[in-house]
Amino acid sequence: KASRIARSAKGRAVMEFGARRAHSYAGALYGSRAAYIGGCPVTSNALADRMFGIPAVGTMAHSWVQMFDTEYEAFKAYAEAYPTACTLLLDTYDVLGSGLPNAIRVFDEVLKPQGIRPAGVRIDSGDVTYLTRSIRAELDKAGYPDCKIVVSNALDEYIIRDLIHQDAAIDSFGVGERLITSRSEPVFGGVYKLCAVEDDGVIKPRIKLSENVAKITTPHFKKLWRFFDKNGMATADVLSLHSETISENEPFELFHPEFTWKKKVLTDFTVRELLKPIFVGGKLVYDLPSLEEVRAYAADCIDHLWNEVKRFENPHEYYVDLTRPLWEIKQEMLSKRGKL
Amino acid sequence: KASRIARSAKGRAVMEFGARRAHSYAGALYGSRAAYIGGCPVTSNALADRMFGIPAVGTMAHSWVQMFDTEYEAFKAYAEAYPTACTLLLDTYDVLGSGLPNAIRVFDEVLKPQGIRPAGVRIDSGDVTYLTRSIRAELDKAGYPDCKIVVSNALDEYIIRDLIHQDAAIDSFGVGERLITSRSEPVFGGVYKLCAVEDDGVIKPRIKLSENVAKITTPHFKKLWRFFDKNGMATADVLSLHSETISENEPFELFHPEFTWKKKVLTDFTVRELLKPIFVGGKLVYDLPSLEEVRAYAADCIDHLWNEVKRFENPHEYYVDLTRPLWEIKQEMLSKRGKL
Repeated sequence: KASRIARSAKGRAVMEFGARRAHSYAGALYGSRAAYIGGCPVTSNALADRMFGIPAVGTMAHSWVQMFDTEYEAFKAYAEAYPTACTLLLDTYDVLGSGLPNAIRVFDEVLKPQGIRPAGVRIDSGDVTYLTRSIRAELDKAGYPDCKIVVSNALDEYIIRDLIHQDAAIDSFGVGERLITSRSEPVFGGVYKLCAVEDDGVIKPRIKLSENVAKITTPHFKKLWRFFDKNGMATADVLSLHSETISENEPFELFHPEFTWKKKVLTDFTVRELLKPIFVGGKLVYDLPSLEEVRAYAADCIDHLWNEVKRFENPHEYYVDLTRPLWEIKQEMLSKRGKL
Repeated sequence: KASRIARSAKGRAVMEFGARRAHSYAGALYGSRAAYIGGCPVTSNALADRMFGIPAVGTMAHSWVQMFDTEYEAFKAYAEAYPTACTLLLDTYDVLGSGLPNAIRVFDEVLKPQGIRPAGVRIDSGDVTYLTRSIRAELDKAGYPDCKIVVSNALDEYIIRDLIHQDAAIDSFGVGERLITSRSEPVFGGVYKLCAVEDDGVIKPRIKLSENVAKITTPHFKKLWRFFDKNGMATADVLSLHSETISENEPFELFHPEFTWKKKVLTDFTVRELLKPIFVGGKLVYDLPSLEEVRAYAADCIDHLWNEVKRFENPHEYYVDLTRPLWEIKQEMLSKRGKL
């Protein structure tokens, strides 16, 4: 979800702002981490900064503005306290009628005499396209073309795409509830099922059957391979028996595991094994990568997927096929109702 | 969400099974607690049992069945290990073709000679109505009319309502992903906003305005009251200034805060203040109720709502109105754009 939202912003920063909407403090914390891995460079979660080193950022709250008798006093006090990180929140009362004029006045009165450029302004409600375009024009006119405009308010990849399509004047997005809870799909329906049993050194495959075809598992001790075409782009993933190897020197036939007449012979490909052993013979044999390495790996994986499988509407299906030996064992177990 | 799901089951138990789908371990733990408060009597989360005393229950996993060479052996070993809590999972391979016959055989061979009744059978996939009705008939025929049938598989209040409507033969429901993540609405969009500032003993009301009317706050230091009719059922909630009191001895006029011509005079009512002070003068003055007290309070609140506001389709709106003095202050602040 974070990757989708970050990609929708087309190079503009997406700030993870969701802590208050997360399912528990740990959901907030690990959600911030996931968002960072997915492409959001900063978070409003200070604990995620302390624990994982994800840069924490923030602007002001509406309560800061409300605390003062006037919005002008609130902005002035903030600019005096945080002159070099002065992002003012314009929508407590009236964005164009008071928020923006007060912000420009404070930039002029407090920051300009110190030679400091304002960091930005933020809005959290209203007609975002209209407001940001108006704000941009006024800021430019007032001599602040470098002042960033930050927007938040129940955003997700679809709304961000739409705002960009409308030429809203936005430099970065604060995304909360729909990112941290993955609101469009808050449940990731993957399961672990037992796929093999080792008994006196013999590996016995196991399958889980179901009337729901999607709940039928692929049996056996396996390897997972990713094929890349001559452009280096991912073509398909293939599950094989653990005892199999796949050579880049001979053609490889992909076939659809259900519609088996759908076939494709790959030549001129590279192939990489994706699974890594973590424990061998009861011993931990794996070094946990750093958060930066995880993030770079995730970005690399996504960069090597064709845009056709990444688009939001009607994406191409990315295939995960089986090798013929594995497919045959699965078919045999299915036909015997699992009793191999 | 837990209350909705528990109520949909019409007296059948709903077991909270969602830990693996929760957003982090803390989401699982506090989700189990929330589910218990909402009306689910048991959980599969053993830590919730240890930390909060919510009874933990469980049946077997598919992996137990898969681990053995045959389903019969798996059931037999389980019945021997847990004779007095023997709930067998029928859908690893083929519910009616192997699962149920193997279960009955094990009940006959292992439990019956010890004079122990089987606890139940569970299915986690397939056509639940058809399967449970077939299972019920077979179990009854085999002399196990008291053997419970437990069902799980992406359930929520709508699917449970539908299963009951179809006369599925189900004694209890295991509900996971859609409960623990509140999948239909994973974000609860409430916010805290500053509503008043105390300055030298003077309370100054504060408001947050917005182009989005739903984001406009109700200002001031307030009380919240619940009105009950002569049947003891909740009629409406009313926000008042903290300085106001409402007497049961005089008629009270409710009016809609937007469509103010919509009015209703209440007589013969009781009224209860809902807010409790937690800190007074910096001191904690509140005893945290026990989990059982919280649960009983939640049930009492829900029991005193009319079914019309609790139904899933087209529920009546439950009104939260303002007293006239509070409404007038809000209008004045709105007309001055918050600058009181």
